[in-house]
Amino acid sequence: MSGDARRRRGIATVSLSGTLDDKLDAAARAGFDGVEIFEGDLVSAPWSPGEVRGRLSELGLTADLYQPFRDYEAVAPVTLAANLRRAEAKFDVMEQLGATTMLVCSNVAEDAFDDDDLAAEQLHQLAERASERGLRIAYEALAWGRHVSEYDHSWRIVERADHLALGVCLDSFHILSRGTDLATIGEIPGEKIFFLQLADAPRLRMDVLQWSRHYRCFPGQGGFDLPHFLAAVLRAGYRGPLSLEVFNDVFRRADPDRMAIDAMRSLLLLEEATHARTGAAPARSPALDVSGALPAAPALRGYAFTELVADPAELDATEGLLTALGFRAAGRHRFKPVTRWRAGTANVLVNAASDEDPHIAAIAVETADPARSAQRAKALLAPMLARERGPVEADLAAVAAPDETAVFFCRSDAEDAESWLTDFAPLPAQAASGPALVTGIDHLALSQPFDFFDEAALFYRAILGLELHDNRELASPDGLVRSRAVSNLDGSVRLALNVPLLAGDDTAGPQHIALATDDALNAARRLRGQGVALLEISENYYADLAARVDLEPELLRTMSELGVLYDRDGHGELLHFYTAMVGSRLFIEVVERRGAYEGYGAVNAPVRMAAQRAPSPLPNHTEQPRRRAVSAMPSSTLQGMRS
Amino acid sequence: MSGDARRRRGIATVSLSGTLDDKLDAAARAGFDGVEIFEGDLVSAPWSPGEVRGRLSELGLTADLYQPFRDYEAVAPVTLAANLRRAEAKFDVMEQLGATTMLVCSNVAEDAFDDDDLAAEQLHQLAERASERGLRIAYEALAWGRHVSEYDHSWRIVERADHLALGVCLDSFHILSRGTDLATIGEIPGEKIFFLQLADAPRLRMDVLQWSRHYRCFPGQGGFDLPHFLAAVLRAGYRGPLSLEVFNDVFRRADPDRMAIDAMRSLLLLEEATHARTGAAPARSPALDVSGALPAAPALRGYAFTELVADPAELDATEGLLTALGFRAAGRHRFKPVTRWRAGTANVLVNAASDEDPHIAAIAVETADPARSAQRAKALLAPMLARERGPVEADLAAVAAPDETAVFFCRSDAEDAESWLTDFAPLPAQAASGPALVTGIDHLALSQPFDFFDEAALFYRAILGLELHDNRELASPDGLVRSRAVSNLDGSVRLALNVPLLAGDDTAGPQHIALATDDALNAARRLRGQGVALLEISENYYADLAARVDLEPELLRTMSELGVLYDRDGHGELLHFYTAMVGSRLFIEVVERRGAYEGYGAVNAPVRMAAQRAPSPLPNHTEQPRRRAVSAMPSSTLQGMRS
Repeated sequence: MSGDARRRRGIATVSLSGTLDDKLDAAARAGFDGVEIFEGDLVSAPWSPGEVRGRLSELGLTADLYQPFRDYEAVAPVTLAANLRRAEAKFDVMEQLGATTMLVCSNVAEDAFDDDDLAAEQLHQLAERASERGLRIAYEALAWGRHVSEYDHSWRIVERADHLALGVCLDSFHILSRGTDLATIGEIPGEKIFFLQLADAPRLRMDVLQWSRHYRCFPGQGGFDLPHFLAAVLRAGYRGPLSLEVFNDVFRRADPDRMAIDAMRSLLLLEEATHARTGAAPARSPALDVSGALPAAPALRGYAFTELVADPAELDATEGLLTALGFRAAGRHRFKPVTRWRAGTANVLVNAASDEDPHIAAIAVETADPARSAQRAKALLAPMLARERGPVEADLAAVAAPDETAVFFCRSDAEDAESWLTDFAPLPAQAASGPALVTGIDHLALSQPFDFFDEAALFYRAILGLELHDNRELASPDGLVRSRAVSNLDGSVRLALNVPLLAGDDTAGPQHIALATDDALNAARRLRGQGVALLEISENYYADLAARVDLEPELLRTMSELGVLYDRDGHGELLHFYTAMVGSRLFIEVVERRGAYEGYGAVNAPVRMAAQRAPSPLPNHTEQPRRRAVSAMPSSTLQGMRS
Repeated sequence: MSGDARRRRGIATVSLSGTLDDKLDAAARAGFDGVEIFEGDLVSAPWSPGEVRGRLSELGLTADLYQPFRDYEAVAPVTLAANLRRAEAKFDVMEQLGATTMLVCSNVAEDAFDDDDLAAEQLHQLAERASERGLRIAYEALAWGRHVSEYDHSWRIVERADHLALGVCLDSFHILSRGTDLATIGEIPGEKIFFLQLADAPRLRMDVLQWSRHYRCFPGQGGFDLPHFLAAVLRAGYRGPLSLEVFNDVFRRADPDRMAIDAMRSLLLLEEATHARTGAAPARSPALDVSGALPAAPALRGYAFTELVADPAELDATEGLLTALGFRAAGRHRFKPVTRWRAGTANVLVNAASDEDPHIAAIAVETADPARSAQRAKALLAPMLARERGPVEADLAAVAAPDETAVFFCRSDAEDAESWLTDFAPLPAQAASGPALVTGIDHLALSQPFDFFDEAALFYRAILGLELHDNRELASPDGLVRSRAVSNLDGSVRLALNVPLLAGDDTAGPQHIALATDDALNAARRLRGQGVALLEISENYYADLAARVDLEPELLRTMSELGVLYDRDGHGELLHFYTAMVGSRLFIEVVERRGAYEGYGAVNAPVRMAAQRAPSPLPNHTEQPRRRAVSAMPSSTLQGMRS
């Protein structure tokens, strides 16, 4: 492809929720250049096609595609006549809309003929009529087309039809869901690829129509190798827009503005990944003040800190627990009621300026280049957080994650004012009450709002450069919970994102901080010795563990006495335990990884969730008070408001 | 099978939400005799197996099955040793629990051997150890078993193993999901069928493991022919309990008491249907005062009435709309502020004793035998509604549907005090303002609470004897809506049950009453002439309709002028239109069926839902006030409180 000219970006209206005006507004605000007009959205809109054209123009959008036109080709003459009449009516609409390309998807009707010559002849006829009006036809193989379900088949028919106004539309879902060989893409002349639709999807084994209609997602959220696919299409010489067409049950009911931004972020990330493979034009962000290419994600080296807020009623309990865990107060914020607690490499800031139940308000990652991390986040349309900053406070950059947790970019070893540590006045060293129990932060587990789970996965992938792991489903007494880990390559930054499998509750239960230890048994013993309430684990768990895993009876007995849980994988072992709840939204886990254990103890999560319910069994669980959504934003000291 | 002895009924704990005690309580309250103890529920319970046994005994429940024991058979010697050790530990638990049968499901491990002899030999060994403790093993073919995935295969292995303490467990899902021929069931001696697990499921084309884990439902809610299956198992001589094992995302988070009742209702209905085919013992209800068989559902002949409640602010508008539709006030309730409005065969009661937005508080069906309808409802565990009744008021029986709408059983032609009509003092006949526009009630559309959608379908199927039609998905601006029609054979009682595809909202939008007319165009013209606000339909709809369907231009023009929508199917045509909202929860549809059109105009529902959003487009739709859950109960005059 040519030069540095930014490629146009589009989104199908069907990908977003709301009325047509909601959708167009959202697409424009997120920086898209064009939209695919989904017929159903137009049919039910109160605006005429001409009025829609006017609105598009006001918003600086173009109508890149009119779609879909169904069940047209390879039909009997009487059907053809009706279909041509229908097409002419749609051409009228397109002229009024200012759309020049119509998507014709392969016939799914039972009475369609399996006859490529007939399909080609009839498509030629349609293209001829379109060209008389200056329009053109993009023919797409639906993965569930009656006779034409592969893109290479649609291309053979287009080739046979041989009309200037007829080309193919390539849709990544239809092609990648079937696993079709991509080699033929290279044989299609670039100018015959009239349109490109991009969608990702989790790898599911199910009816492809249902898969397509309900589970598509934005590139980078699913399991398809879209950079490889896009690279092939660009190498073939495709010059049209990169347009997202995503049918997703959640996206089509979620806030369209947020989803449009998520969509744009997914395209920027995809362009970056594709550029790395092909040398295609680098991704350029529509964020106004970023004119260059997307800044690369700097390497991360663990957590600088995590910040808890705690209301006065829970403050003593929170700090008492940290003390018991071997943390000591290492610094006091110079201007704010925030204490820095430290144990090993773990820094936990406790923010007393809150009237909310204890929860994680902020996480801070150690980045090799905080400024570049922030530039990348901004270019990827992350909501930047403006801080209320004292005149000599460090200028920390932060963004709001989809669950509103603040994410800070820090470099603790900076010797200038840029280190967040300079904001804290050191406290006199306290006599340690014993050997350190905690060596650092192992991971953080954050409950996500239902509608923004995929957004969260993409957020961390795009902005922090983390890797997504597979979704897992965990059984809790109140239903299934979906959990997805995201981490960097060396495992120094790990997050577990949790969400209920069904919407309805705002959160998937409490958040937690998992602290690393070298000796979980000792840690549990020490904590119990200090009277710290740990989560009680059923004796049945240990009976089952003994049946499943060949462990030393002595170790088993000790784990059982202390409430320590166990897992193993091909790389090592995990010993871990949980504190009782701190308030109603937070608990702490202590984790000992032996060897190179890679997981998070998910096998034990159902036992943990049941135990967290057990202390107060209610006769009718629907009557229990539901937890509130995570909304850390207003209460974090280190942050102010969205910029 | 023998005599009239009632067959024992059971449910797997995994089918219900909550902690183990919640599950056991719910099962007992719903009248189950036993439970399958799902291992995960026991492992995370704070009670020891002995304590669980005590609790079961208190509740009058037995532990019919301990399940599942996985990946046991056809393994290498070292694995066998570990598996036997694991089994012995589980036998210990079973002895403490008082469970005598263990479910062993076919091995799914990659390293299992495809060797029936080895599987049989190792199962024999397991059965021998079990029998030493007075226990027995039920071997089940998982539909996704590595080498054993069909029940006839599991039977061949059991036959080969030839041990008294070894039999098969038949699970309807594993068998019907694969479409396995049922003939072999008849070859299995009844005493070798150790256990029977029952589950229904919608017919989905997807990975059978995911289908099984997320989409099972109670018999009668899905697409399997369970009476046929159960009849085959009973004919083979199976004498154990009928036990439900249902993995369902919704059920496992919904109120366990309601779900357990729903489960019991499904079994009663299944037993009735199976009895009809086999002469097996008729279904007997655990409802205490019903000792005989389930009373058959009397034939229904349409709606006696529907009752609207309306707050004072909307009362005039509601009654004004009825007047414009050609209804006239035909009677006044003798004791309550309720007016009977009549047009053709349609009776709409308007209840002014409410401070709620207008909505449907009650529906009344015409039944050939109201007393028997009520007995059946009671036997099927429907919540009976106790009415606040005056001394000379008709004794109408009513039950609460899952969405809390009251359902009354009426016989309007009764000449004695049993007719609901005797409660109304006739009003003087009014001069009709023109020919009747409305001939009767065509159907009612009720929005369902998300968690109770399957319950609602089964409720109407079981209690009213209605037929379930397929689910449809309809696109609204705020997400997909699932709609399922239920009706009797002659179509005189039709309901459309609507629910959002994703939970989170309490309702799937407003309810509506669809009134039948002989002339929708005339009706729309008359209403507009009287200044009645009808829903405005986009001109784009008619342009699309003209393109899709070959209609007379004159008819199209008229429909467009009047806002009348159109559909056709293989049997006839539909012309229909909608009023504007009455309050925020209700509207009225007017429906003309030409020929034998069978549907509900679902193709036009997206246009309707978009038009209902259109009058007040909001820049951010997540900020719009959400509608409240349907909660008609407290406000209906004709009803009092649950008995």
